Amino acid sequence: MGFQITAAASYVPTKVVSNQDLESMMDTSDEWIKSRTGITQRYISENGRTSELCINVAQQLLKQHGLKAHDIDLIIVATMSPDSLTPSTASIVQGAIGAERAGAFDLNAACSGFVYGMSVANGMLKSGMAKRIMLIGGEVLSKLVDWSDRGTAVLFGDGAGGVIIQDSEYSNMLNSKLESIGEQGQYLTAGVMNKPVQVSDFNFEMNGRRVYEFATKQVPYSIEETVSEAGLELKDIDHFLLHQANARIIKQVAKKLNEPIEKFPCNIDRFGNTAAASEPLLLAEQLANNKIKRGDVILLSGFGGGLTIATTIIKF
Amino acid sequence: MGFQITAAASYVPTKVVSNQDLESMMDTSDEWIKSRTGITQRYISENGRTSELCINVAQQLLKQHGLKAHDIDLIIVATMSPDSLTPSTASIVQGAIGAERAGAFDLNAACSGFVYGMSVANGMLKSGMAKRIMLIGGEVLSKLVDWSDRGTAVLFGDGAGGVIIQDSEYSNMLNSKLESIGEQGQYLTAGVMNKPVQVSDFNFEMNGRRVYEFATKQVPYSIEETVSEAGLELKDIDHFLLHQANARIIKQVAKKLNEPIEKFPCNIDRFGNTAAASEPLLLAEQLANNKIKRGDVILLSGFGGGLTIATTIIKF
Repeated sequence: MGFQITAAASYVPTKVVSNQDLESMMDTSDEWIKSRTGITQRYISENGRTSELCINVAQQLLKQHGLKAHDIDLIIVATMSPDSLTPSTASIVQGAIGAERAGAFDLNAACSGFVYGMSVANGMLKSGMAKRIMLIGGEVLSKLVDWSDRGTAVLFGDGAGGVIIQDSEYSNMLNSKLESIGEQGQYLTAGVMNKPVQVSDFNFEMNGRRVYEFATKQVPYSIEETVSEAGLELKDIDHFLLHQANARIIKQVAKKLNEPIEKFPCNIDRFGNTAAASEPLLLAEQLANNKIKRGDVILLSGFGGGLTIATTIIKF
Repeated sequence: MGFQITAAASYVPTKVVSNQDLESMMDTSDEWIKSRTGITQRYISENGRTSELCINVAQQLLKQHGLKAHDIDLIIVATMSPDSLTPSTASIVQGAIGAERAGAFDLNAACSGFVYGMSVANGMLKSGMAKRIMLIGGEVLSKLVDWSDRGTAVLFGDGAGGVIIQDSEYSNMLNSKLESIGEQGQYLTAGVMNKPVQVSDFNFEMNGRRVYEFATKQVPYSIEETVSEAGLELKDIDHFLLHQANARIIKQVAKKLNEPIEKFPCNIDRFGNTAAASEPLLLAEQLANNKIKRGDVILLSGFGGGLTIATTIIKF
């Protein structure tokens, strides 16, 4: 039983917040943000509802595919910023689109969540538990942002993207690797809810230097291992879709792998870091623009809070 | 590639809160709570760390099995009350036990989370993504409780339970069914974090009547369908391990299925409703007391927030 991506879509809130807008809110500058992160703007949800973004993506996916909602067996939402702890955002999506009695759960591996979700979806197909899965990465990270911390507030954005994954004769997932380095979890935290639960604990806290070191060391390692285990070489990969955390991390990973930067599409300038939404936002955009074509081999690598890393190789 | 449970363990915090203790905090009585829910006491975590309970379970599982932490490929924590939105509780467990580079993620399908997790684990084995998985259900629901709402505050407790699931020649998972009825999600909510995030929104809110109606209608239906699809009859099931939400729901389900109540073990009197922890707490206890023996066919059915329902049949 195989794994095939048959539709991809994305959605962002309508409100744009530019670096210039942030200049009026905190001691920062467009030049500072751009040179350190590659970000020029981000989209921000006004009501904080992650489900609203995911439902839009879900409806696009059904339309694109010519499916009815009841054709979906299972809905997985990868998120670290759900609407609520219960109901899960996946259940809210399931109810809203009318995917009658489909299974639904949220998966949280932070910025690696969507790539983790691809492996979970693959397993659900392989075990015969589902024939057609909707996998969405959706985030409203802005509700976890401390707008007085210029070190983190400028980084994050809101959005959602998703795919339909369905059973097919041949599997297009060539290899996958899921890892966690929980020993370093304290370098990137958000939504802390130990007792007593306090809103102030909810905000992102990041040791930027440590996260940068982690990413530029572990991501190339994960990519090399996953490629090699698949019996492939780096040159066989047509597109490296990296989690959009920081343009400098992407450049550094490309350099370490000694692969041309042109193979590493980047859209962080417009969206900021959208955690679990970043990979499907990029994938949907690349597909919509015909940058990825049938037969291309793409590698997705997610990394971030946990700390976690996940890499998957797919032949389109 | 098969599915076999090779170890089970559970852990609860040391602090016991009896119904009598609650009488001094709110307008309630031991008699009222017992007659409506079957609960006489619950365990309550003082620091709110779900990971602390899960780490204890993880360490017991390794010891019981004679495993080293690096023998674990993947850690899944089913929870609706994590320590934080990032790192995931699974990553915290992974780091704490030293399960070097294992994958780790949290799964949220509320009270159905552990049974959902069993199917996800099965898929990960079937797809060859993992050989040995640690699946833990862990909750500190007390941090989501409004202690001034006597309708919900008396219901919930804290705890964790888990299993090692590993690849084997024959699969012991006979059938599984995951469902969601998101249209009714509003009848049981907690941890609402739309903008602005407010601590007061975090508390449980429940329409008890609607949830009772849902459970007593949908759980028998899910059980009958899952049994029948497996080519079995209700009489072939030796033990029905239902989510411990309410002793009256369990009695009503047994009655509707026309199966003897003795086949429905119950420990809600001591633990209260522990959401995703309830199934593994009950399973570990039944195994430790030799109530479940090799060759027995057990059915687990989780239900709750989402609303979600999940049923799995396993031959021990």
